[in-house]
Amino acid sequence: MTNNTITAPKGFLAAGLPCGIKQSGKHDLGMIVCPGGANAAAVFTTNKIQSAAVQVSKQHVNNRRIFAVVVNSGNANACTGSLGIKNALKMCEKTASLIEENLQNVLVASTGIIGEQLPMQKVDDGIAKTAAKLSASPNSGMDFTKAIMTTDTKPKMSVRQVDISGAKVTIAGTVKGAGMIAPNMATTLCFITTDISITKTLLNKALKNAIGNSLNKLTVDGHQSTNDTAIILASGSSGNKPVTNQSAQYKKFSHALTDLCDDLARQMAHDAEGATRIFKVIVNGAASQNDAAKACRAIADYPLIKCAVHGGDPNWGRIICAVGSSGVKLNVNKLSCKIGHVTVFHNGKPRKFDPKQVSKIVSQSEHTISVDLGAGKKNDFCYGCDLSAEYVSINADYHT
Amino acid sequence: MTNNTITAPKGFLAAGLPCGIKQSGKHDLGMIVCPGGANAAAVFTTNKIQSAAVQVSKQHVNNRRIFAVVVNSGNANACTGSLGIKNALKMCEKTASLIEENLQNVLVASTGIIGEQLPMQKVDDGIAKTAAKLSASPNSGMDFTKAIMTTDTKPKMSVRQVDISGAKVTIAGTVKGAGMIAPNMATTLCFITTDISITKTLLNKALKNAIGNSLNKLTVDGHQSTNDTAIILASGSSGNKPVTNQSAQYKKFSHALTDLCDDLARQMAHDAEGATRIFKVIVNGAASQNDAAKACRAIADYPLIKCAVHGGDPNWGRIICAVGSSGVKLNVNKLSCKIGHVTVFHNGKPRKFDPKQVSKIVSQSEHTISVDLGAGKKNDFCYGCDLSAEYVSINADYHT
Repeated sequence: MTNNTITAPKGFLAAGLPCGIKQSGKHDLGMIVCPGGANAAAVFTTNKIQSAAVQVSKQHVNNRRIFAVVVNSGNANACTGSLGIKNALKMCEKTASLIEENLQNVLVASTGIIGEQLPMQKVDDGIAKTAAKLSASPNSGMDFTKAIMTTDTKPKMSVRQVDISGAKVTIAGTVKGAGMIAPNMATTLCFITTDISITKTLLNKALKNAIGNSLNKLTVDGHQSTNDTAIILASGSSGNKPVTNQSAQYKKFSHALTDLCDDLARQMAHDAEGATRIFKVIVNGAASQNDAAKACRAIADYPLIKCAVHGGDPNWGRIICAVGSSGVKLNVNKLSCKIGHVTVFHNGKPRKFDPKQVSKIVSQSEHTISVDLGAGKKNDFCYGCDLSAEYVSINADYHT
Repeated sequence: MTNNTITAPKGFLAAGLPCGIKQSGKHDLGMIVCPGGANAAAVFTTNKIQSAAVQVSKQHVNNRRIFAVVVNSGNANACTGSLGIKNALKMCEKTASLIEENLQNVLVASTGIIGEQLPMQKVDDGIAKTAAKLSASPNSGMDFTKAIMTTDTKPKMSVRQVDISGAKVTIAGTVKGAGMIAPNMATTLCFITTDISITKTLLNKALKNAIGNSLNKLTVDGHQSTNDTAIILASGSSGNKPVTNQSAQYKKFSHALTDLCDDLARQMAHDAEGATRIFKVIVNGAASQNDAAKACRAIADYPLIKCAVHGGDPNWGRIICAVGSSGVKLNVNKLSCKIGHVTVFHNGKPRKFDPKQVSKIVSQSEHTISVDLGAGKKNDFCYGCDLSAEYVSINADYHT
C-alpha cells in the first residue's frame, strides 16, 4: 500500500482519534511526532485576534528542534484569555511528557468554535490515548488528517518525491477547510512533513514561498481566521547531503514544496463550503505588485462573479466592474479580459464571442479568468470558488 | 391625494413609459423637467469604468441651469465607446429640442445591461412620447420611478417638508436598486427634486453630505457600478428667501435632505436582491476615520456575518473575526461588541448572554451591531443586508 499521508516521509509517527470535544463523536485529536527531532518552520494568521494555540506555537517554533505537534478540532481555543493560553501550554506539556521532551519543543494548533474553554479532562485523556496509538502506518497518517477536519467533506492530502543529491526526499502535506468553515470561523490548518536535511532558515524560506504562492492565493471569503496555521517539520532522515544554501538542490525542494501546496490549495477550494467549481484569476499589466494582488482578490471575492460562475454565465461585465471598482491603476483603453482562452473584452471594448462556448468553459470544474490592466508589467494570480445556495444554508442554518 | 413622488416640489414635471428597451415591456424611459430651470448638483460613481451617461452628465452638471433629466433603464450604455457617448448626447439633444433648450442643460442617466449599444430608434421615439406625457401629477411622478426600476420589487420614494424662512420647502427623492442588480451590474440611481431657492455651491455641499451619510453608507456587495449617479435639482419655486450661506436655514435644509436620503438608503437595503432583513453597523473607538469606515465595511460585507443574520444567529465570533482581519488598529484587551443593546463581547472576552433573546434581536427586520475597537475616538456607521439563497439564485440563474 502506497503511503500518501503525512507519515510517508521517514522519521515521523502520527495518530488521531475522537476524544469527545466534538459532539458528533468524530475524530478531534491528532498528533505528529518526530522522535529524532525536526527542524520546523511555520506561518500564522495575520488576524489581530489570535487563538491561544497560535500565540504559543509562534514562540515555540523559534526553538532549535521540534519533536511533536498536537492538534484538536471542535474548539478553536480563541478569545479565551489567559486560561486559554494555560490550556494550550498544557496540551504541549502533556504531549511532551509522553515523549520525554520539553514542552517548548512541542507545537499546538486548534480549530473549531471560538469563545469556549477547552474541555481539558477530555483533551488530557485524549492526548494520552493518541500517544499510545502513534505509528508510521498510512492508517495512522489518515487518522491524523481525520482529526483536523471540521466541515470538510473529504480528507485532503498530497505527497511529492524529489531527488536531492542522490537521496530520495519525500514531502507530504495535509490541510483542513477552505474558509467558510462552520461552526464559528473560517479556519485553515496545514501540516507538512518531510525527511529532507535542510537548515531551519532555508526551510522557513521555502515554506513562506510555497504558502505565499498557494494557500495565500486562495480566497473563499477574503478573511483570515484567528487560527490559521501552516507548519512544516523536516526530520533530516532521507540521508541527503544537508541543504545549506540556495543551491539547485534547494530550488528543487522549494519547487516541489510549492507544487504540493498548490495541490492542497486546489483541493481546499474544491471542498469549500457549498462550492461546486473553482476558478483561477490571473491579472497582468498591473502598475505594482500590490495592484496586481488587489485586482485578483477583487475579482475572486466579488459575490456577483461567484454567482455567475455558479450559474455557468460568461458575465464579463461583472469582471470589468469589479476591476474598475477595486481602486487599482488601469488604462481604460487597454483593459482586456479573457475567459479561458476566449477574449471577451479587448482594449476597453466588448468583443463578440460564442456565449455557448464560453458558458461551457465557465461550467468546467476549473477555469481561468485573465485580466490585463494595461497599466504596467506586474502580475499575480489567485484561486476562487463559486457561491451556491448551499453555502448560504450551511452558514445560515447553523446556530451558535 | 398626497403627492409623495418627485413631482411634489413646485416647479417640476415628470413622465415615464415603456419604449421597448426592456424585453419585458415594463417602463424603461423617464424624464424630469424643470421648465423654469434648476440649480443642479450630482455625485457619480468612483468606478474607473464609467458609463457614457456618467461621462456626459459630469460635464453638463457644471452648467449654470439644468432644465431636464432623461433616464433609461434596461441598457447601461457602458463599455460602449465613442458611439455610446454620441448616443448619450443624442438623448440630451432630443430632450432639449422638445423643451426648447440646449443639450448642455440636460442631464442623462442609464442603468441595465452593459456592453450593448442603445436601440436609438426606440429611445428617440420614447423620448418624444415621454415629453408629450409630462405633468406634475403624482401618477407622472410614479411613472418616472417605475422607469428607473430594474430588479427592484417595489418603488422607492421619500418626501420631506421643511420651513425655510417662512416658506414651505418640499424635497422629494426616488432611487433604484441597492447593488446586486441584474442583469449585469450593481447600479444605483437617485433623483431628488426640491423647490428651495439655494446657491449651486450650497446645493452641492448639502448633496455630498447627504449622500455621504446615507447611500454611501449602504453596502450590499462592496462595489460601485459603472453607472451610479445621484442628482438633485432645485427649482427655487417655494418662494423662500434664497439660501446663500451656511446659515441655520441651510442646516435645516441639509438635515432634512440627509434624513430623506437615509430613508431612501434603508428602503434600498430592504429591497436588495434576496435580502430579508437589514442591519446597521456602528464602529466606535477607531484610531482614524478611515479605520472606522474600514471596520464597518469589513463587518457589513463579510459573507459569514450576512449568512448569520439571515439565520437569526447571534454569531459574535464572526464579527470579531471580521474586525481582526480588516487590518484596522485595535486594542485586543478593549475590544467590545454589542448586538442590539446586549453586550456579547467585552474587553477582549466573550460575555454570557441569553442566545434566544439575542437571536430574536438579529431576526428583526433591522438591528444594530456595535463594535468598540478601543483604539481611539473616531466612529462611523453603515447599513448592510443579509445573504440569502434567493440572492444566489437571482444572480446565478440569470444568463448574459
